Amino acid sequence: VLGTLQSRHENEKYLPGVRLPDEVVATSDLNRVLAADAVLVAVPAQRLRAALGSLSSAVRPAVPLVLCAKGIERGSGKLVTEILQETAPQASGAVLSGPSFAADVARGKPTAVVIGAQDPAIAGRLQATLSTASFRPYASQDVTGVALGGAAKNVYAIACGIVDGLGLGESARAALLARSFAELMRFGETLGARRETLMGLSGLGDLVLTATSLNSRNYAHGSKLGRGEIRAGATAAHEPLVEGVPTAPALLARAKALSIELPVAEATAAVLDGTLTPRDALIRLMSRPLKTE
Amino acid sequence: VLGTLQSRHENEKYLPGVRLPDEVVATSDLNRVLAADAVLVAVPAQRLRAALGSLSSAVRPAVPLVLCAKGIERGSGKLVTEILQETAPQASGAVLSGPSFAADVARGKPTAVVIGAQDPAIAGRLQATLSTASFRPYASQDVTGVALGGAAKNVYAIACGIVDGLGLGESARAALLARSFAELMRFGETLGARRETLMGLSGLGDLVLTATSLNSRNYAHGSKLGRGEIRAGATAAHEPLVEGVPTAPALLARAKALSIELPVAEATAAVLDGTLTPRDALIRLMSRPLKTE
Repeated sequence: VLGTLQSRHENEKYLPGVRLPDEVVATSDLNRVLAADAVLVAVPAQRLRAALGSLSSAVRPAVPLVLCAKGIERGSGKLVTEILQETAPQASGAVLSGPSFAADVARGKPTAVVIGAQDPAIAGRLQATLSTASFRPYASQDVTGVALGGAAKNVYAIACGIVDGLGLGESARAALLARSFAELMRFGETLGARRETLMGLSGLGDLVLTATSLNSRNYAHGSKLGRGEIRAGATAAHEPLVEGVPTAPALLARAKALSIELPVAEATAAVLDGTLTPRDALIRLMSRPLKTE
Repeated sequence: VLGTLQSRHENEKYLPGVRLPDEVVATSDLNRVLAADAVLVAVPAQRLRAALGSLSSAVRPAVPLVLCAKGIERGSGKLVTEILQETAPQASGAVLSGPSFAADVARGKPTAVVIGAQDPAIAGRLQATLSTASFRPYASQDVTGVALGGAAKNVYAIACGIVDGLGLGESARAALLARSFAELMRFGETLGARRETLMGLSGLGDLVLTATSLNSRNYAHGSKLGRGEIRAGATAAHEPLVEGVPTAPALLARAKALSIELPVAEATAAVLDGTLTPRDALIRLMSRPLKTE
């Protein structure tokens, strides 16, 4: 990948057909990376701790680290913002999230995202630097809410993808999405996220995008599971960018430690680890006893 | 329509290919209708006052009237539940809403909806009567929230359809949907709706379904507007079931009377009445100054 990025200014694997600006330089030299004005850290969540570990001694507060991964760390149950706090506490951290397919951003389609940073000056500076006529970052101080929304939606996108793959219809998918959002709200409030963040771009907006489109890797993964095209556990190792696969058990573990029940996430994790078939998991979810809403 | 409903047990216009149960009898005799155990009133919102007016003297509290229309009355700005209160105050009213394409329900796909009734006994009775293995009604006492969610989502579905028709991408559509939901929450709280209702099936769930699918008449209408296939004001008279068209100005008028700003609904109404082109309306919405979320 580095080779074609350098020679052809194109990411052939993940963004084929889009010529990147000439100013974009590919390098594996971390010192060169850290000489920038800001660093966007776009490695998968499960590899973030290792990546930050190799950077941490060279990180200076003057160079903000902007976390772009969306996930929860398996084993620790930590959000990406918490991993940064543990590995490079001296860093000026920020987190970028919101409904934004790379293909839409790269093609100049209108995109609105959120930059979360505890320090409003950092968020404001990143906002000014990163914004274009079509890419609109909004600022937030709620780093937990921004990081959580991006992470959890990948799990719920797999769930909604399973509904699609099983052919249960758009009405059922919408009902499941509403229940997923209710889970996200419940979990987020316990973690200290603001309700407004979860109801905004990086929460609801990203959930809606990811959980209704086959252009989402996580939704497509769920759809294939529902259609029986892939088996539980089959692709986790080969598809690091289906962040919902490792995040599902991590989300559940964190929720259990906080005594919160997340039935949709639980059913999704059970499908992913092969404990339940997609059909059994969804039927169990959909046929709970009738009650008040 | 009445003819083929009677002779072939099929609604050829709106649900072709689905054979209705033999117990379904078509009649235009209102006395026969009101002899039932409950009446589902499924006329468009703009015609509800007239329909209820012709029923009102014969309505008895023992026969609940379940409002199935989703809209706000043009001119008065009233919700369907308020229209019932004005035309037949003695009625036992209820309102049925939630993410449920008729085609999904008719084909036995899993569907979860909400029955709102101030009297929990009525909601419970309707819940027991209407539920099947695949059609799952939940009960709510928040009639305002249930009626409002169903009405407002048609307006926002047109807005999201315009984004689709303009080819602005799924990310932009998701951002607009999140902003639409924020508007719905703000408006709903002022009207006294419960937040939980608006975040549930009849609010968020129905909004997501309607504002992401070309199977929704309102979304499809917006998409055609965005593509320039139809002109502003062209179809309102011929398409009574595109409820968002008359509801958009009604929603706005009600909001203005309450001093609430609804920028997405306002832009949508401006496109519908020809004041703004779809592109100008959306560009204006998407390029507001950057700020905190």
